[in-house]
Amino acid sequence: MKKIVLLRHGQSQWNLENRFTGWTDVGLTEQGRLEAKEAGNLLREADFHFDQAYTSYLKRAIETLHYVLDVLEQDWINVEKTWRLNERHYGALQGLNKAQTAAKYGEGQVQIWRRSYEVRPPALSIKDPRAPQRDRRYAQVPPADLPLSESLADTVARLMPYWEGVILPRMVDCQEILIAAHGNSLRGIVKHLKNISNQDIVSLNLPTGVPYVFEFTDDMVLQKDYFLGNPAEIKKRTEIAASQPKSSD
Amino acid sequence: MKKIVLLRHGQSQWNLENRFTGWTDVGLTEQGRLEAKEAGNLLREADFHFDQAYTSYLKRAIETLHYVLDVLEQDWINVEKTWRLNERHYGALQGLNKAQTAAKYGEGQVQIWRRSYEVRPPALSIKDPRAPQRDRRYAQVPPADLPLSESLADTVARLMPYWEGVILPRMVDCQEILIAAHGNSLRGIVKHLKNISNQDIVSLNLPTGVPYVFEFTDDMVLQKDYFLGNPAEIKKRTEIAASQPKSSD
Repeated sequence: MKKIVLLRHGQSQWNLENRFTGWTDVGLTEQGRLEAKEAGNLLREADFHFDQAYTSYLKRAIETLHYVLDVLEQDWINVEKTWRLNERHYGALQGLNKAQTAAKYGEGQVQIWRRSYEVRPPALSIKDPRAPQRDRRYAQVPPADLPLSESLADTVARLMPYWEGVILPRMVDCQEILIAAHGNSLRGIVKHLKNISNQDIVSLNLPTGVPYVFEFTDDMVLQKDYFLGNPAEIKKRTEIAASQPKSSD
Repeated sequence: MKKIVLLRHGQSQWNLENRFTGWTDVGLTEQGRLEAKEAGNLLREADFHFDQAYTSYLKRAIETLHYVLDVLEQDWINVEKTWRLNERHYGALQGLNKAQTAAKYGEGQVQIWRRSYEVRPPALSIKDPRAPQRDRRYAQVPPADLPLSESLADTVARLMPYWEGVILPRMVDCQEILIAAHGNSLRGIVKHLKNISNQDIVSLNLPTGVPYVFEFTDDMVLQKDYFLGNPAEIKKRTEIAASQPKSSD
């Protein structure tokens, strides 16, 4: 049996401040670090031995992965980082908090961005210092592939080539892999694995710091999926995730 | 101008206890973490922007690298881990402290292990639970390539294929790379870069947590090498490194 574990990073400083983060590279809070270590403990108790790990180019996911691998004493595992696992890009909303966003754009418009699959928030200018095209870390990516704003549909679309081209082929040689990433890039993977509709995926809220296990046959047919940990705690964290602006991550 | 920075990990728990560590996977102490962060600060002040990092399969080097990249806000850099950058394998000495080693093998013999380039300490048994051939992390390495004990010459010999085959070719596309590793694997690199004799390399003591910068022309001719940081602090750490059993790392 093969297993893929998805892990959404723990609380970041901007989660705490309820600001749209997107591709802003914000670190974990102390609570976020604790969540990561707890996730590591759950995976250790469940006796996971990973062959490979994947994460984004954003430190809140990278740091979460480091803590998990350290608790597991699997620091030595190969880790591949990719911009394609980054959080959804929130365009000009990045940095604004919920109240600022409602004041600037109106509550109705904010609801559309939160609840639609295909609507993009206002884009960053290509001249904005925050534009990914101006960030050294994305220098290897063709500028036209880099977003200045994304709908959830866009996030899924840029994620899938990596899923199909890198992660799935790697499963031929692996039994267990770990993907530490973000609310919306992980939504994309779950949507694909469970064949969830565009309409339904926007209301799927993944709890932070809770390992989400997918089990497959050797030829990668999904058998079952489940969260690791205490059901009451998972329920609590899922409700917290649902109560925030859905795109707040 | 191209630059390669070598960084010896900070204090580990077994450095503190003055025990032979070798391939034992011991974590950093709090002081070791501070040393790593200080190294990150020195690299930040000197305005380093790394294209690539390399480290060993051992957490004291991996964790050092994580702290450095985090301070630099370059967490997203590609990191490649390899057993070929591991510390010298100390065979059956691993786990013993200086006093135990002298009592068991005699002070004269310990001096030979410390001061010779080509003499190996007693080997671990292949049946020892600590034998690398029994450790999942080395499963991809042909068992005959894995050591049960190493002289410094052996360490250099298994390091060089990685230097020639992976690191140097990567420099074609890179301006600045960082290698976080161990006293003896870094000795191997310095020996090669500065053409140091077998006799002299055993008395080269690299300070822990001090970035050691090598500058090259674009076609990789070495121009100069220097440590970053306060000269008095570097001198102090070099003396500490020299006062320990040379193979204590």
